[in-house]
Amino acid sequence: MKPIFKSAVLPQGFKASGIVAHIKKSGKKDLALFYSDVPCVASGMFTKNKVKAAPVVLCERILKSKVGIRAVIANSGNANCMTGEKGLKDAFKTAQLVAETLGVSAEEILVSSTGIIGKFLPIEKIRNAIPALVSSLSDKNFEDAAVAIMTTDTFAKVAVEKIKIGSEIVTISGVAKGAGMIAPDMRHATMLAYIMTDVCISKSVLDIAVSEAVEPTFNSITIDGCMSTNDTVIVLANGASGSNPVKLNTKYFKIFSAALKKICLNLAKMIVEDAEGATKFIKISVSGSSSYSEAKRLAMSVANSNLFKCAMFGSDPNWGRIAAALGSIQSSLELKKMNISLNGRKVLKYGRPVVFRDKGFLKGRVIKVDINLGKGKGCWTVYTSDLSYEYVHINANYN
Amino acid sequence: MKPIFKSAVLPQGFKASGIVAHIKKSGKKDLALFYSDVPCVASGMFTKNKVKAAPVVLCERILKSKVGIRAVIANSGNANCMTGEKGLKDAFKTAQLVAETLGVSAEEILVSSTGIIGKFLPIEKIRNAIPALVSSLSDKNFEDAAVAIMTTDTFAKVAVEKIKIGSEIVTISGVAKGAGMIAPDMRHATMLAYIMTDVCISKSVLDIAVSEAVEPTFNSITIDGCMSTNDTVIVLANGASGSNPVKLNTKYFKIFSAALKKICLNLAKMIVEDAEGATKFIKISVSGSSSYSEAKRLAMSVANSNLFKCAMFGSDPNWGRIAAALGSIQSSLELKKMNISLNGRKVLKYGRPVVFRDKGFLKGRVIKVDINLGKGKGCWTVYTSDLSYEYVHINANYN
Repeated sequence: MKPIFKSAVLPQGFKASGIVAHIKKSGKKDLALFYSDVPCVASGMFTKNKVKAAPVVLCERILKSKVGIRAVIANSGNANCMTGEKGLKDAFKTAQLVAETLGVSAEEILVSSTGIIGKFLPIEKIRNAIPALVSSLSDKNFEDAAVAIMTTDTFAKVAVEKIKIGSEIVTISGVAKGAGMIAPDMRHATMLAYIMTDVCISKSVLDIAVSEAVEPTFNSITIDGCMSTNDTVIVLANGASGSNPVKLNTKYFKIFSAALKKICLNLAKMIVEDAEGATKFIKISVSGSSSYSEAKRLAMSVANSNLFKCAMFGSDPNWGRIAAALGSIQSSLELKKMNISLNGRKVLKYGRPVVFRDKGFLKGRVIKVDINLGKGKGCWTVYTSDLSYEYVHINANYN
Repeated sequence: MKPIFKSAVLPQGFKASGIVAHIKKSGKKDLALFYSDVPCVASGMFTKNKVKAAPVVLCERILKSKVGIRAVIANSGNANCMTGEKGLKDAFKTAQLVAETLGVSAEEILVSSTGIIGKFLPIEKIRNAIPALVSSLSDKNFEDAAVAIMTTDTFAKVAVEKIKIGSEIVTISGVAKGAGMIAPDMRHATMLAYIMTDVCISKSVLDIAVSEAVEPTFNSITIDGCMSTNDTVIVLANGASGSNPVKLNTKYFKIFSAALKKICLNLAKMIVEDAEGATKFIKISVSGSSSYSEAKRLAMSVANSNLFKCAMFGSDPNWGRIAAALGSIQSSLELKKMNISLNGRKVLKYGRPVVFRDKGFLKGRVIKVDINLGKGKGCWTVYTSDLSYEYVHINANYN
């Protein structure tokens, strides 16, 4: 699932860069820029946490104005959250500084931050780094940008799809960071992801495609049930492919939507794969539910159960904890109609335990949990990780 | 906070016993009996998990019948949950076996179980153990019973209060077990607790007193956010003190209610103190909220945040995670009006971070988190523990 950078190309007309601005103590790359030669149609989805970081507030304002977007600047190491009016000024100042150097308007720049909450952005460090950030913009530096948005991530997350819209090749390239403070939210995304494409599309159609793509992907992963203050998905479309316009309810929309969803799913899975301290990649599917939303709530209840996650860390087929997590929320669940399988092995058959002696069938890294409620046609799949010593270690010692 | 067993007396007319029935592999005590010489008025509160254990289903039925209760039999090591019709029969069989030996009716017996989910109760072991269980009933064996209901608990939990109702001394004695799979539920309790008293009280008045006592105590603790399938609080009142009857809206009701609440709070705090792997005892108080229920939801959101719990394990005053947890649920929260203190040290003042260099002020075992929303008069306090390596260890290797 880890990306092969040889194929991590940017769409036509896009450039990227990622450098060290010394925002992180570690001295690792911490400032990224995604740039388009021409103004982009832009769509964004953000956290619905009531404690929103300053850059999220700024992005939401700018995207409402419907101005074409030229660039996204993103820093790691500092979330610029709970920083009051000064935080908002710092976010806008960051946009201004990049805009001046790029020779565009500050309203054409989106700003993102991730890292520690409650500390002011080191704006002087950012000011000092911007000339180098802009001068290193290149269609070859996608990987640098992917690395620069990482926090506790152990690998950079990139996904690329190429599709044909009429006679033109359209590229969609996405990058994401994850690792911790990852939890779903019904309407918004839950981590940082930037997706660029050279497709021709209007803002209203892009908004619909993004919203449809995010729900079963980024909004269907959870690592620790903790909703972040900075979650952001931004999609930029610059039209540089010269393709036919992608319009609603056409085959081009279907092709584009499917590719966008695939990018989002690949990035979302990489986030789970690289979850803080994860030793397992867990796919939880609920079917036979009375509705899609119920299936999702049930799957998420299991995915966020610490007891379930610890059992998975121990490769222990303790399905009782799955049942307890399912029962803890209101639903149409009837024990007598429920079936549960773990890695294809039935452990609960119509509400009755299936006796098994071999307990070694969860030893591998990938675990599949299939729950069938036998009630209706609603189904949903979520992805999560286990709860390990390392997760505790990382989050007891985070600075 | 650990109990002093010298003072752990039973109320008049009650006896208890706790023995080894070999339900647990460890060979430790695993079968307890609480018995009254005369029929008791009984009140119970149970989990609202949709996956209810058989003994919970049985207790709810019996308590509806309003028959006087003579005894509670409780086993550890097996939850008798997800065991279908056979499980329900086994629970009733347990009641029958004790009833026969005691010479009472099976409808006068309440049954409780705690332990692993999805395994049939070893009914033959229980049958074999019951004669010894009954013959060792004594007013001196309260501690044995307290030990026999333990699972991953490291100490037995007992609390006793003595009050004066008119000229009579009334005793209230409670016992509880906790440790893991502990999460609050708005209307029901979240662990096993048995409280006995020799007060004279009617069922309807006792029901009110119990419900009022449980909400700010057992229903205000959380260890891992995981709601159990077996949570039970049972209160038995046998009237043996010969006290004036405790009637609603009297000073006797106030006295009795306050003592009952104190017992519940002490037992609830012991459960948190003895939480699986806990290294911290954390008290989270939300005030200035628009309602009591909102204050409780906010405090619980912080208490159940894995990131917050890990930070506490690391003695790290990372209040940003408190803010993120507060913001993750819908509420009247306005950042600009919010204050947060940790162990009396203000870290957020009207939404602005307070700069501090000394980070050692959370090193002790007890941590107090005070959140003031500056919005209204609603307030609530919850108790929780941290998330440690040991919690993961215990729950990755539970059998």
